Amino acid sequence: MSDNRYAAAARFRAALRQFLRGSEDRARSVGLTPRQHLLLLQIAGSEDGTATISQLVSGLALSQSAITELVQRAELAGLVRRSQSQEDGRVSLLSLTPKGEAKLAAVHDALGPERSELRRVIDDIDQA
Amino acid sequence: MSDNRYAAAARFRAALRQFLRGSEDRARSVGLTPRQHLLLLQIAGSEDGTATISQLVSGLALSQSAITELVQRAELAGLVRRSQSQEDGRVSLLSLTPKGEAKLAAVHDALGPERSELRRVIDDIDQA
Repeated sequence: MSDNRYAAAARFRAALRQFLRGSEDRARSVGLTPRQHLLLLQIAGSEDGTATISQLVSGLALSQSAITELVQRAELAGLVRRSQSQEDGRVSLLSLTPKGEAKLAAVHDALGPERSELRRVIDDIDQA
Repeated sequence: MSDNRYAAAARFRAALRQFLRGSEDRARSVGLTPRQHLLLLQIAGSEDGTATISQLVSGLALSQSAITELVQRAELAGLVRRSQSQEDGRVSLLSLTPKGEAKLAAVHDALGPERSELRRVIDDIDQA
């Protein structure tokens, strides 16, 4: 029925599952774990392309220790680097290395069609 | 920077995490598990408000045994009921009970603002 108020929401959830699975697959295909991909996106998407550990804790909704480990592994993998904050020398600022930037760009670009599909499906909800 | 191509995508992921968490919280607040909520949505969102086990397997991307258990528990909780397909007596059709309908409607309506927020955020991506 076209008047089924749940049809679009059910399609949206299915599209969301597909999008998230696609995102994880794309990340793995360039050698990133799904969490590393989200870490790189969170850093690169911040106002000046740098982020502190505490900003990542709130942005990624993970614990301080989970973020610390995630960042250490990403550093070892050559995806991110640390520099000292000019304002507060005790604070580390994380930014992407060229390698991290290239991998993020590859995943982001590959996900373009999936983002469009998700936008199309969500636009259908509650419009009736 | 307004020309940061990742800012909108990072905001979208954060909004998505919030939406999914909000959805789980809303489900639990009416006594549904997050999976039961998605089960009810998938059945109610189907063309005629009924679904077979195999339709749910593909729609929810869970295994046959996971769906079977999920459906059995939902039946015991009085959320869904089975009837025989008119076309094939061996096939069970699942539909929502009035109790299941009321709980789904409560979660769906409560999530309205979260869906709008998610739509707003996703509309920002790739528009620049």
